[in-house]
Amino acid sequence: MNGGAIRDSGSEVVLGLDGGATSTVCVCIPLPPLLDHQNLPDPLPLLARAVGGCSNYNSVGEKAAKETLEQVITEALTISGSSRSAVHAVCLGVSGVNHPSDQEMILNWLREIFPSHAKVYVQNDAIAALASGTMGKLHGCVLVAGTGSIAYGFSEDGKEARAAGGGPILGDWGSGYGIAAQALTAVIRAYDGRGSQTMLTGRILKALGLSSPDEIIGWTYVDRSWARIAALVPEVVSCAEAGDQIAHDILVEAVKELALSVKAVVERLRLCGEDRNGSFPIVMVGGVLETKSTWDIGKEVVKYIQKLYPGAQPIRPKVEPAVGAALLACNFLMKESEVNNHS
Amino acid sequence: MNGGAIRDSGSEVVLGLDGGATSTVCVCIPLPPLLDHQNLPDPLPLLARAVGGCSNYNSVGEKAAKETLEQVITEALTISGSSRSAVHAVCLGVSGVNHPSDQEMILNWLREIFPSHAKVYVQNDAIAALASGTMGKLHGCVLVAGTGSIAYGFSEDGKEARAAGGGPILGDWGSGYGIAAQALTAVIRAYDGRGSQTMLTGRILKALGLSSPDEIIGWTYVDRSWARIAALVPEVVSCAEAGDQIAHDILVEAVKELALSVKAVVERLRLCGEDRNGSFPIVMVGGVLETKSTWDIGKEVVKYIQKLYPGAQPIRPKVEPAVGAALLACNFLMKESEVNNHS
Repeated sequence: MNGGAIRDSGSEVVLGLDGGATSTVCVCIPLPPLLDHQNLPDPLPLLARAVGGCSNYNSVGEKAAKETLEQVITEALTISGSSRSAVHAVCLGVSGVNHPSDQEMILNWLREIFPSHAKVYVQNDAIAALASGTMGKLHGCVLVAGTGSIAYGFSEDGKEARAAGGGPILGDWGSGYGIAAQALTAVIRAYDGRGSQTMLTGRILKALGLSSPDEIIGWTYVDRSWARIAALVPEVVSCAEAGDQIAHDILVEAVKELALSVKAVVERLRLCGEDRNGSFPIVMVGGVLETKSTWDIGKEVVKYIQKLYPGAQPIRPKVEPAVGAALLACNFLMKESEVNNHS
Repeated sequence: MNGGAIRDSGSEVVLGLDGGATSTVCVCIPLPPLLDHQNLPDPLPLLARAVGGCSNYNSVGEKAAKETLEQVITEALTISGSSRSAVHAVCLGVSGVNHPSDQEMILNWLREIFPSHAKVYVQNDAIAALASGTMGKLHGCVLVAGTGSIAYGFSEDGKEARAAGGGPILGDWGSGYGIAAQALTAVIRAYDGRGSQTMLTGRILKALGLSSPDEIIGWTYVDRSWARIAALVPEVVSCAEAGDQIAHDILVEAVKELALSVKAVVERLRLCGEDRNGSFPIVMVGGVLETKSTWDIGKEVVKYIQKLYPGAQPIRPKVEPAVGAALLACNFLMKESEVNNHS
């Protein structure tokens, strides 16, 4: 089974890390044989899985982010019975990587943790999410809508593009944070006379354990975590299902916003081909797109996108983003082995 | 000149404090004679003025907020050559007072600082701003649009109402923060293909010393102060003046939002009377309403309001909110002396 480029994969392992807004997951898989164009085993054999806190340095600071990474890596290696020197490659998909300088900083953290022969890769978490739906192949578009939202894509010839993903200040209105912040705003507007009455008032006050809308203002200041706000999305969905017009309008707007970010990526990369009917994968990831409700945001987004691009093929990944990151590492290794074999 | 209720105002003083989002101002005035229905001297003689940092406990925490208050109070008293026991009354207008429990906490801080005979009052900073335009009288509506925005009003019979003022999460889109956050969002949307190109891109990147829109995302995370974002309002105004459609639309939307919050207050208090033509003061305060530009947000808001309520009388206060707080303290003392005289 051993391929040409890598002669002895022996007990070597590959680590995939997902550094999300609320937790960090590390998985460990055996290094697969890396033949040219070879398909990776599906499902991947998982040697270990470890979970830690948030590792987005924008949220928790550099020191805490680095410590969390070290901790989940150590735990995953311990569980799998591997040493750091057995690590052939590591790929970290992490939110908050918006600029090459961010990437370089985190690469340096990983280089400090692992021996020099290990290959280290750092990618925006959206790219690991894409890989989780395409078995590591970087082609098509991913839409992530959890606490935040982002669309990210790759063309067949390796061009990449992203849209949204700017965080709460920069108007990602289709994200969980965006939906819930608009619902909270609607409650305040109904209360002070700027907006119509809405079922959201009773539902959200109950969910937060508050007795009056003016208490919401203080509540938003107590803890500035966006995930805490995004956690209110199910209340908005349930009000929309119960016929509340304001909740419905917020979700319709979110669907449009999410589809618009996919559209921006698809257009820039011409993923739909020149005739706009070309086939391409669209990987759908994140809590907002996974509601098991009658009012199904993910389904509406797909409908909207397929109206624009009939060839869009929605994929709901069967593996988590950390496994996507491990698949990505394998994909990068394969490409490098390909280059080496042909040179 | 000495009135009935207060026989010896001697060297007694009144303190007015304005605890804004970026700084805290304390002014010291001599206790005026408190006759029934007497008009306060205009202009008020100012004995001292001191400035400190932010005292919004939501932003800086309770300990820092309290220390800042103590510091500006001590400084103002030192400058005026007064002791704490000479303080007859103190009124603090402070942002972040959204609920009676907030008010009670800050009242207790002031009670710890001053001897028990001093009257202490804590009000939402919007109320001090109203008083700064009405010489202490609580009647009419104030619109504050600085970093944040709020409308607050009182009817002749003492009913009060507010609208907006929820902070950045709760959609105060007419505030300086709201205007600038939408401008930053427009730059990101133009960059990633979701929105049209806008002059805001070049103007804002230059103002922030950045070279590419994707650096804005990191910039928003470095420092979560809203005032830093609101500081970009002049760039938006200048782009709108230069004919940029997106900047223009953001300002038009802000005008509507600000007028809508005034409308909510006016309607709830029926400030315009039953025939909707009644006269009432509308006090306009804050950097967003004071632009000395061709595109004048404040002027547009007044136009919008006067179309709805022809009797609305705009007032631009000649004194600062801290003086408004001092006027408010005098007003409260006068009312109490009135009650005592009549009982």
